[in-house]
Amino acid sequence: MVRYRLILFVLGVLLLVESFFMSVSIIVSAVYSENDLGPLALSTGITIMSGFLLFILNNRIEKKVEKREAYLIVTLGWVVLSFFGALPFYISGYIPSYSDAFFETMSGFTTTGASILNDIESLPHGLLFWRSTTQWIGGMGIIVLSIAIFPLIKIGGIQLFSAEVPGISTDKLHPRIKETAKKLWMLYVGFTLAETILLYLGGMTLFDAINHSFTTMATGGYSTRQASIAAWDSPFIHYVITVFMIIAGTNFSLSYFAITGQFKKVFKNSELKFYLLIILSSGLIIAAGLWLYMGLPPEKAFRDSIFQVVSIITTTGYATTNYLAWTPSGLWVIILLLMFVGGSSGSTGGGLKVVRIHILLRNSYTEFKRLIHPHAVLPVRYNKSALPQQLINNVLAFAILYIMVIAAGSVILSFTGLDFESSFGAVATSLGNIGPGIGSVGPASNFAHLTVSAKWLLSFFMLLGRLELFTVLIIFTKAFWRK
Amino acid sequence: MVRYRLILFVLGVLLLVESFFMSVSIIVSAVYSENDLGPLALSTGITIMSGFLLFILNNRIEKKVEKREAYLIVTLGWVVLSFFGALPFYISGYIPSYSDAFFETMSGFTTTGASILNDIESLPHGLLFWRSTTQWIGGMGIIVLSIAIFPLIKIGGIQLFSAEVPGISTDKLHPRIKETAKKLWMLYVGFTLAETILLYLGGMTLFDAINHSFTTMATGGYSTRQASIAAWDSPFIHYVITVFMIIAGTNFSLSYFAITGQFKKVFKNSELKFYLLIILSSGLIIAAGLWLYMGLPPEKAFRDSIFQVVSIITTTGYATTNYLAWTPSGLWVIILLLMFVGGSSGSTGGGLKVVRIHILLRNSYTEFKRLIHPHAVLPVRYNKSALPQQLINNVLAFAILYIMVIAAGSVILSFTGLDFESSFGAVATSLGNIGPGIGSVGPASNFAHLTVSAKWLLSFFMLLGRLELFTVLIIFTKAFWRK
Repeated sequence: MVRYRLILFVLGVLLLVESFFMSVSIIVSAVYSENDLGPLALSTGITIMSGFLLFILNNRIEKKVEKREAYLIVTLGWVVLSFFGALPFYISGYIPSYSDAFFETMSGFTTTGASILNDIESLPHGLLFWRSTTQWIGGMGIIVLSIAIFPLIKIGGIQLFSAEVPGISTDKLHPRIKETAKKLWMLYVGFTLAETILLYLGGMTLFDAINHSFTTMATGGYSTRQASIAAWDSPFIHYVITVFMIIAGTNFSLSYFAITGQFKKVFKNSELKFYLLIILSSGLIIAAGLWLYMGLPPEKAFRDSIFQVVSIITTTGYATTNYLAWTPSGLWVIILLLMFVGGSSGSTGGGLKVVRIHILLRNSYTEFKRLIHPHAVLPVRYNKSALPQQLINNVLAFAILYIMVIAAGSVILSFTGLDFESSFGAVATSLGNIGPGIGSVGPASNFAHLTVSAKWLLSFFMLLGRLELFTVLIIFTKAFWRK
Repeated sequence: MVRYRLILFVLGVLLLVESFFMSVSIIVSAVYSENDLGPLALSTGITIMSGFLLFILNNRIEKKVEKREAYLIVTLGWVVLSFFGALPFYISGYIPSYSDAFFETMSGFTTTGASILNDIESLPHGLLFWRSTTQWIGGMGIIVLSIAIFPLIKIGGIQLFSAEVPGISTDKLHPRIKETAKKLWMLYVGFTLAETILLYLGGMTLFDAINHSFTTMATGGYSTRQASIAAWDSPFIHYVITVFMIIAGTNFSLSYFAITGQFKKVFKNSELKFYLLIILSSGLIIAAGLWLYMGLPPEKAFRDSIFQVVSIITTTGYATTNYLAWTPSGLWVIILLLMFVGGSSGSTGGGLKVVRIHILLRNSYTEFKRLIHPHAVLPVRYNKSALPQQLINNVLAFAILYIMVIAAGSVILSFTGLDFESSFGAVATSLGNIGPGIGSVGPASNFAHLTVSAKWLLSFFMLLGRLELFTVLIIFTKAFWRK
C-alpha cells in the first residue's frame, strides 16, 4: 500500500528546500544587477507556491515512511527537483529548449556535469550560481539535507536516507540518522569554505572560487568557464582542486574521523588505501606516458595526468587538457577505465565505487582458490573481517546490472544516430555521473549536438547512476507493485 | 606436487593425435598434387617424432592425473598443438612470419576464426584443409577426443575433461566420461556429414562443402574464400549454414536427446528457450531495421540479419555482409552485444554462454525482490530447481573476470598503436572466439595489419576464452603453486 498523499507531502517539503537555495541565486543576481533577476524570482515563486500547496494539502496524515514509499519519494523527488530547477534557465531564455534546460539541471543535481552550453561565459552570474548550487546540494543529497533540517520527516528517515545514499558501507556517525546527516553536512560546508579561501588566494575571483568549491566538493564538475579549469593557467589552482577532488571522493566518515583525531579508523580502511593506490599508479603510468611519448616536461606531465585521473575517478569531470588527444590511445583508455571505478563509498563521487571494485577483485581471486580447494571454506575478507555471501552477491549483481545498463543504453542511444564510441561514452559518463565521455562527447566537446530524445535518455541514466540503479529500477519491476 | 613427466607424456599423446589429422591433409594435397605436399609431410614428420619421443621417454609412470596437472596439461597442450600446427603454414612459406602462422593456428584450434590472410584463395588445398581441420578438432576439443580414443589416459580423464570443457552444466550422457566423450564425437561427426551433403547439394564443391561443415560445426568460421560465405550467392546455402550454426551453438546433449527421442528433456531446457528467444528477437529487430532504414527487400533483410546474428551469437564468425556498414549504428551494436552472449553450454560456441547470461539476469531480478523482502529466502531458479549460491557466485565472478580481462586487454592493445574501438573489438572477439570484431578488425577486414606483439597478445586471449579463463589464469596465481 503506497500512500500517495504522503509522497506528495514530502515532495512539497523538498520543493520548499529547493526554493530556499534558489532564492540565494536571486541575491547573487541582485548584487550583479543582471537580467536574470526576474526569471530567477519568478522560478522561485513558482517553486515556493507548488511546494507550499503540496505541503498544506497533504499535511494531515501520519509521517512514517515505508520502504516502497521511500523509493518512490526519492526517485520522484529528484525528477521534480530537476523539473523546477530547470525553470530559471528556461524562463530567462538562456537555454531556450526546455529539454536542454532539464538535461542541464538533472546533470547538475546528479553531479554529472555534462553540459549542453556552448558559451558558458555568456550566462549572467545568478544563473551560473544556481547551476553550481544544483551540484552542491545534489552532491551531499537534498534528501539527506532535508532529514537534517526538517524534523517533520525524521520518522522513517532511515528509509529515505538509504534510498538516496545506497552505498554499501555508510558508517553511522551517530546512532540517530538526523545527527549523522547533520555532521555530514557540516563537514561538507567546512571543506567548501576551506577550498573557497584557497582558490581565492590562488587568484580566482571570489565568485569563481565559490562556484568551483561548490562543484568540486560535489564532484560535479560544472565550471564558470567554457574551458573548464584550463582557463586558469596556475599550477597552484590545479593542485588545490586536485587535493579537494580527492577529499570529495573519499568517504566523508573517514574525513570526520581524521579531523576528530581517530586516525586508527582511517589507516585501517581498505577502501581508502585501494583508492589512493589506483590514483597514484594510474597517475604515474599516464605521467610517464605523457613525458616519454608526448614530450611534456615532467611537472606538467604529472600535473596533467594526476588532475585528469583524479577528476575522472572521483567523477568530477573538470578538465585541464583534452585526454582524447593523448597518444598512444592506451593512455586515455586508462582514463576510460577509471570512469567505471568512481569514488569511495560515502563520498559524493559516482561510478561503481572503489569498494565494489575492490570486493570484485578479491572475490575473483577467491574463486581461483576455490577451484584448487573445492571443499575448503574460503571467505572474502575486507577491513579484516569476512564479508557475508549475501553482500558479495549484491556487489556482483550491482556490477553486472551496471554493465548491462551501459550495454543496453549504448544500443538505444546508437539509434538516435550517434556513433558507437560516443554512445558508449555518453552512457558510461552519464551513469557514472562524471561529465565528459569519449568520442564526440569528449572533454573538448559537450552534449549540445545530441537529439532531444538522446538528452532525455541520458537524463534518465544520470538519475539511475546517482541513485545507484536499484532505487529507480525497482519501481519498474512487477515485484514492487505486487500485493 | 606437479609431475612434469606425466605432463610431457600426455602432451606426447596429443601430438600423436594431431599428427594423425595432419596426415589427412597430406592426402588432400596429394589428390590435388600441389606444392604444399612436402611442407605438410615434413611438419607431420616433426610432429610424430616429437610426440613419439615425449611418449616413449615418459611412459613408465603412473597415469592418474591430478587437478593441478590437468590445468597445466590442458593449457600447455593447446599451446603445443598450436606450435606444431603452425608448421605447415610456416614451412610452406605461405605464411612467411611464424608469429602470423601461430596466430592463424591458435585462431583455428580455439575456433576463433580471426585470420591474417589477405588472399585465402591463393593457398593450396592441403593447407586450406589443414586450416579447417584445426577448427574441427578444436571445436569438440582434442583432449576430449583423446579421452575417447586413448585408454592410456582414461584414469583421471574427468579432471582433463572438466579443465577443457569447463561449462557449468555439462550433462553426462554416460556415467563413464570416456563413453560421454565418444557419444559427443559421434554426434559431431554425424552433423558434419549431414551438413556436407546439404552444402554439396546446394552447389558447393565437395572440397568447399567439407571445409565449411568442419568450420560450421566447430563454430569456427574459417572459410576457403576471402569473401567468406558471401562468395556463394545462394539463399539455400545461407539458410543451411544458419541452421547448422544454430545446432553447433546448442548443447550437444540436447541434440543427443532429440535424436534419441527424449523430447521432454529438450523442451524443458531453459537455456535452449532463451538461446532461441535471443536469436529470434535480435534477428527480427535487425531485419526490420535493414528493411525500414536501409531499404533491403524483406527476405534479404531477414536472411542477412539472421545469418549475421546466428554467426555472431554462436561465435562462428562467418559473414555474408559487412554489419559495420549498417545504419543507424544501433543495428550493429546489437551484433556487438551478441558477441558477449556466445553459444550454449556444452556446445562448441564460445563467449560468456547463454546459460550464464540467463542466470545473471535472473539473479539481478532476484536482487530487486530481496530489496523489497529483505528477510525472505529467495532462491534463483533454473530448469525448475533452485541454484546453489556457490554456483551463482561462480557465474557472477566469471562474468566480472571476463569483463575485466576485456578492459585490461583493450588498454594493453591500445599501447600497440591500435585505436580504441579496434582494440576493444579485437579483444572481445578473441576472448569470445568469434572472429570478426569492430573498427579496423571488422568483418570486411582481417588481423594482418596488427603488430607482432598484438598478435601474440590476441593469441593468448583466444586461449583464455576457449578454456574459459580459469583453466589458464589459475596457473598464474600464487595459490596454484603453493604447498
